[in-house]
Amino acid sequence: MAVIKAETRSGAYYDSVILMQLQRSLAALPGVLDAGVVMGTEANKDILDQSGLLTPEARAAAADDLVIVISAETAAAAQAALERVDELLTKRRRGVEQEYHPKSLESATQLLPDAQWVLVSVPGRYAAGVARQALRLGKHVFLYSDNVSLEDEIGLKQMALEKGLLVMGPDCGTAIVNGVGLGFANRVRRGAIGIVAASGTGLQQVSARIHHLGSGITHALGTGGRDLSEAVGALTAHQCLDLFSRDPETDVIVLVSKPPSSRVAEGLLSAARSVGKPVVVDFIGYASAVRQVGNVRFATTFDETAELAVRLTEDEGRKAKGREEITGLDRFAPGQRYLRGLFSGGTLAYEAQLVLQGYLPALYSNAPLDKEYRLSNSMVSQGHTIVDLGEDEFTVGRLHPMMDNDLRIRRLQQEADDPEVAVILLDVVLGYGAHPDPASELGPAIAQARAGAEQAGRHLEVVAVVVGTDEDPQGFDAQVEQLRAAGARVEVSNDVAVRYVGRLLQSFDPNPESRIPNPLDLAVLHQPLAAINVGLESFAESLTAQGARVVHVDWQPPAGGNDRLMAILERMRKQ
Amino acid sequence: MAVIKAETRSGAYYDSVILMQLQRSLAALPGVLDAGVVMGTEANKDILDQSGLLTPEARAAAADDLVIVISAETAAAAQAALERVDELLTKRRRGVEQEYHPKSLESATQLLPDAQWVLVSVPGRYAAGVARQALRLGKHVFLYSDNVSLEDEIGLKQMALEKGLLVMGPDCGTAIVNGVGLGFANRVRRGAIGIVAASGTGLQQVSARIHHLGSGITHALGTGGRDLSEAVGALTAHQCLDLFSRDPETDVIVLVSKPPSSRVAEGLLSAARSVGKPVVVDFIGYASAVRQVGNVRFATTFDETAELAVRLTEDEGRKAKGREEITGLDRFAPGQRYLRGLFSGGTLAYEAQLVLQGYLPALYSNAPLDKEYRLSNSMVSQGHTIVDLGEDEFTVGRLHPMMDNDLRIRRLQQEADDPEVAVILLDVVLGYGAHPDPASELGPAIAQARAGAEQAGRHLEVVAVVVGTDEDPQGFDAQVEQLRAAGARVEVSNDVAVRYVGRLLQSFDPNPESRIPNPLDLAVLHQPLAAINVGLESFAESLTAQGARVVHVDWQPPAGGNDRLMAILERMRKQ
Repeated sequence: MAVIKAETRSGAYYDSVILMQLQRSLAALPGVLDAGVVMGTEANKDILDQSGLLTPEARAAAADDLVIVISAETAAAAQAALERVDELLTKRRRGVEQEYHPKSLESATQLLPDAQWVLVSVPGRYAAGVARQALRLGKHVFLYSDNVSLEDEIGLKQMALEKGLLVMGPDCGTAIVNGVGLGFANRVRRGAIGIVAASGTGLQQVSARIHHLGSGITHALGTGGRDLSEAVGALTAHQCLDLFSRDPETDVIVLVSKPPSSRVAEGLLSAARSVGKPVVVDFIGYASAVRQVGNVRFATTFDETAELAVRLTEDEGRKAKGREEITGLDRFAPGQRYLRGLFSGGTLAYEAQLVLQGYLPALYSNAPLDKEYRLSNSMVSQGHTIVDLGEDEFTVGRLHPMMDNDLRIRRLQQEADDPEVAVILLDVVLGYGAHPDPASELGPAIAQARAGAEQAGRHLEVVAVVVGTDEDPQGFDAQVEQLRAAGARVEVSNDVAVRYVGRLLQSFDPNPESRIPNPLDLAVLHQPLAAINVGLESFAESLTAQGARVVHVDWQPPAGGNDRLMAILERMRKQ
Repeated sequence: MAVIKAETRSGAYYDSVILMQLQRSLAALPGVLDAGVVMGTEANKDILDQSGLLTPEARAAAADDLVIVISAETAAAAQAALERVDELLTKRRRGVEQEYHPKSLESATQLLPDAQWVLVSVPGRYAAGVARQALRLGKHVFLYSDNVSLEDEIGLKQMALEKGLLVMGPDCGTAIVNGVGLGFANRVRRGAIGIVAASGTGLQQVSARIHHLGSGITHALGTGGRDLSEAVGALTAHQCLDLFSRDPETDVIVLVSKPPSSRVAEGLLSAARSVGKPVVVDFIGYASAVRQVGNVRFATTFDETAELAVRLTEDEGRKAKGREEITGLDRFAPGQRYLRGLFSGGTLAYEAQLVLQGYLPALYSNAPLDKEYRLSNSMVSQGHTIVDLGEDEFTVGRLHPMMDNDLRIRRLQQEADDPEVAVILLDVVLGYGAHPDPASELGPAIAQARAGAEQAGRHLEVVAVVVGTDEDPQGFDAQVEQLRAAGARVEVSNDVAVRYVGRLLQSFDPNPESRIPNPLDLAVLHQPLAAINVGLESFAESLTAQGARVVHVDWQPPAGGNDRLMAILERMRKQ
């Protein structure tokens, strides 16, 4: 029959690694059957209960109390084990081989003045205070601690933003800065992919998969899981995107997070579109109707994210498809800015609208994706417009526009006369059943429309999507040739044509550069990493193992963990 | 100054190709400036108005009336042109080289008894009647006509379903059956991809892109744009999926449509999952949070659809990754059926839930995707469960499960003792900061859990995702080896591991086969195509050009287009 004895201690702080090791040492003592060494939270009491270790004493412990429970064969063995607790704790306390442990951040800073980082892994209720001290000392913060309040997170991140510093976290499990892993981090090859992640194991899985694929990363920056919430507004993620946009070694950026709020997602995606590098976004579980908007691509799993990022770094060398520069913008007259799409194919018109959603703020149609953008009169375009001329309203008692080009040619002329029109997009569908030689009619109409615009001092860009094969009865090459001769840009893929049009129209009204008030100094990414560690000693050991310089602080809760005294100390520091 | 003269004719039917040709012939006569030949619909009157051709006579025309307007240099020239209308119409009427034009479907059937298809392109208000006749004669219907009522579409498709026949359309622009294009269709190489499309130009763009990529199609079947609406319920699409699932020449199926209602999408995706072949779905603009569920993959543009389908046909030859057969199901005891996922990585747990959504009806978690599935007690699993042991609730005053395996090992034992548990999924995260040798603790726990289950007459499948690289301090290979030796299946990708688990769990409860009441005879796909054409003569010409046998019907509206008489005739036919 087992004998159980327990002891609780108030106001004592030991890091959790030490508690785990104490538990194992106790369990290994002669006559001891099981041991529990935990802080007295409800969840930990549940766990003690399941192991039959929840004595009345342990049940009465507060969340701040250290609870030690021994189950032994005899009362004497249990008592002997409890008496060895202090000895075992003391024996443990020389983990990091550092002769002198400073007791404060200030003195640690004097020991290692070029430390850019402070790693904080003290319990949640103390963590914000330590992080604030670090920011006041001009250090970036890696905040591993969880159970930090939302208000503290926002306050810390705003303070960091003002000072041009970074706060990764709270609850930031991992990061890799200049080859050195902070917190939990795999050893990953150096390469050209920069990762921003609001997800610890997401970052680890993506970076490990990039390594498996033979590629590598520049840096991987964590933001903490709450950074992309409505309340925090992705403050850290925006700083990281900005850093990577300016980092010359980063060719491709990866952004990983659980799905953010739509407002935050919009802001981040808008920033991502303006970084000038390919960005792979994995908002895990975020249902995106398109896979690509300009330089931004969407992935849905970590595997796919890694594969896409690696493929893009390979493409970077030989200029990725679809990144062709838009030139000749000076040929357009001031005021020219609208697209008019004149489609015979209904679903091509639909796909065009879908893809253009990512490029244009508003797009009207007689068959719109969203009825808010329905043309009030299908015969008259407004703003950016895509007309489906094969809709029922146009085909009662009249041939389909794939057979009869008449209506489309009239509309083409009408659009070309509009001084605000810059681009005309049309589809030319070949094959059996269709017009036997559509380019013979559309070609001259296109040439005439362009000539008319030119006489009026404008440039009219005409983009034609030819849907067909080399075996079609119209003769594919001859159709393309006639359209090209008329001055049209010809594509064989609707997707490619529409993306070109999207980029062209965007260059009339480029996104403003994303602005970070106090951009971080790129040096943070490129100097050899040096850090001050406050909290789990094992993190300091891990930095040392990676060859980084580190000073571990022998931290104890301020004011013995007394909340009121802590608040007073904090106010004094601010003055 | 131009002179405009107009004429309207009631009750006359000419197909629209003929009207277009009449218009062009008239416009080319001496002294004629412009000509309009249209049915008197409002849209057509708008167009006449824009060209300055809307005379008071034309304005007064009804939708059924043929309107002929001539603008000429002199009144005499206009009059002369109008007088040539009958002659020009007569001259045109020998398009198809066929000595005798039958006047009815019945007599056409006698002329070409092995015609399997009737192509219908008469005006909308007559089209349902012709299609019904065709079904009564046991023919499949390609219904090009638009402006057909929803009630007629449902009636026709239900009738077809009862008879084991297919109705493609109404408003079906295109199909390719056994190498012959119906309506509008590109000439596309034969291959192993079967296409089902509720979108005409979608089908054309996808099939053309497949051809561009050097691949080809078996058949491409249209359903009409409304088939996937809530009201029609995808009757035709289900028949087509069933056909392709049984067609031995089709290796990969493509399904293209604008986004259907969620009920219809669910039904179709469920049918697609049970066809036993890869299916690429492009519900254009349908935002899917995952790219793949079992054999079903989602694409978002026509280009991507074509590329994916072609890649899959290539994979078919050498067995696509992830289609490995699930074996050894007989080792599980009756009643074993649940998954328990014990994760240390929060976002890995999240991705696992996301991917498993497509495989499992309900999945509980302490950090669920949807709060409906929140565990009532995080310490106790229910049904299929994924627990994130790194959640704050477990880490107050306790080490993260990446450093301390204690809690996880206890939970593993608890789950293994549950006779309903079949699979345990866990992640093992390596790297700096993590436990120095997790497999040394997890391995024996896994071996013990499996041995315990075996003693109780059960089989416990344990799947471990190892997140790490070959440069991690724990030694990647040694970690994997220890886990494998303990009997775990080891994967390095969360995605791959989770999909394996999904397929395994599904095989305990396979989807019932999709059931079509009267499956179509596969012969429809494999017999040389022969057809009866009612409506646009040019469609008959196009079939002839493709080497298919065709009989064109010299069709006139029944009862001179009188609605009341038509209804009486229709009732008489039914008797």
